[in-house]
Amino acid sequence: MTYCVAMRLDSGMIFVSDSRTNAGVDHISSFRKLHVFKNDGERILVLQSAGNLATTQSVLSLLRRDSGEVEGERRGLLALPTLYDVALRIGETLRDVIKRDGEEFSGTLLLGGQIRGEEPRLFQIYPQGNFIEASVDTPYFQIGESKYGKPIIDRVLRYDTPLEQAMQCALISMDSTLASNISVGLPLDVMIYPADSFSDAAQYHITESHPYFSQIRQLWSRGLHSVFAQLPPLEL
Amino acid sequence: MTYCVAMRLDSGMIFVSDSRTNAGVDHISSFRKLHVFKNDGERILVLQSAGNLATTQSVLSLLRRDSGEVEGERRGLLALPTLYDVALRIGETLRDVIKRDGEEFSGTLLLGGQIRGEEPRLFQIYPQGNFIEASVDTPYFQIGESKYGKPIIDRVLRYDTPLEQAMQCALISMDSTLASNISVGLPLDVMIYPADSFSDAAQYHITESHPYFSQIRQLWSRGLHSVFAQLPPLEL
Repeated sequence: MTYCVAMRLDSGMIFVSDSRTNAGVDHISSFRKLHVFKNDGERILVLQSAGNLATTQSVLSLLRRDSGEVEGERRGLLALPTLYDVALRIGETLRDVIKRDGEEFSGTLLLGGQIRGEEPRLFQIYPQGNFIEASVDTPYFQIGESKYGKPIIDRVLRYDTPLEQAMQCALISMDSTLASNISVGLPLDVMIYPADSFSDAAQYHITESHPYFSQIRQLWSRGLHSVFAQLPPLEL
Repeated sequence: MTYCVAMRLDSGMIFVSDSRTNAGVDHISSFRKLHVFKNDGERILVLQSAGNLATTQSVLSLLRRDSGEVEGERRGLLALPTLYDVALRIGETLRDVIKRDGEEFSGTLLLGGQIRGEEPRLFQIYPQGNFIEASVDTPYFQIGESKYGKPIIDRVLRYDTPLEQAMQCALISMDSTLASNISVGLPLDVMIYPADSFSDAAQYHITESHPYFSQIRQLWSRGLHSVFAQLPPLEL
């Protein structure tokens, strides 16, 4: 499986993806699930994928093939005027690949980013090709193994949460998922997108030995144990 | 849906069930999912159910019908010599009902308890009628919407966790699930079974206004926010 989360907040966006891919427990590998399409200064598009790897890789390959810059002219995802159009194009591609390969090879995508002239936007794209957009009330989407890490996001995240705290929240959410589900695994690919920056500079690769991630995992675990230990004696 | 958790520990057992049943979001009702069969002083059997209500109610009705005491002679679940035999009988009944009504009306059960002469035991019974037993390494089972509440159990619970703390852990696990999934709802039915007590006296019904549950939900939420707020500044 996979766990990816994306947040679209007042001050920008957060993306966190694991990299585990498995076909049964005896065939586990690591694949990047966070992909960036960009014209620096004009648009940043971030795709995260969950589901059948053959399907989502095919979708990415087709989108890359059709989104190059030929003789100074931008095409595909790099040329579409709004993020809504980008979501529509990706949805069509996903639907086409699933139709071609078979419905059992399904996939789901998150698309976040910003095109100059628009606010940052975040979409969840379904295998059927249709999609929903994040809002002030629901400022985040998850795909893959989403349930383990949902409670902490629901407790902590608001639309006006600052980006740094939102990233901490996403990392804790990932930590809860890693602890309870072997099909989600390190390394992580993460990205912070400050609104109107039109840059993907804040991308990081987080392995088992990453000092900050290791530190907050430990602190979080200790903190939870300490809150738990301080609960008042049972009284039913 | 449903969320039920049962723990089989060194010092006894813990059972916690929600009571929400829904057929779509516009048909939500409350049904008890924790059921006790007993001969005081000789055996306590606790069943928890998840899945199609028609199926699990039918299974319970058949088991009740066949487990009475007739002219001083105990029959059915009240007569079988070991908890293994009880799990086998319940598995057969579940499989028969699913075969009768159709495979789309599936269900899963937890069976915990103790028969004099045996240790306390805990089984998870599948729709196919087979079952697995909890062990020292995996001292708990969950059925229904199990993922939201799994991380906190994985962090806190050990085989030698005292019953009071284990119940606190189960209640916190339920709280995380209630917060993130509308298909799981109050009231809760909970039971503490001290090993070798052969009594179901410690059963409690927990509603929205239950003072202790309300208190630890608040304390837990505040505690998490405080641990989160104390994480060191992001450093990627």
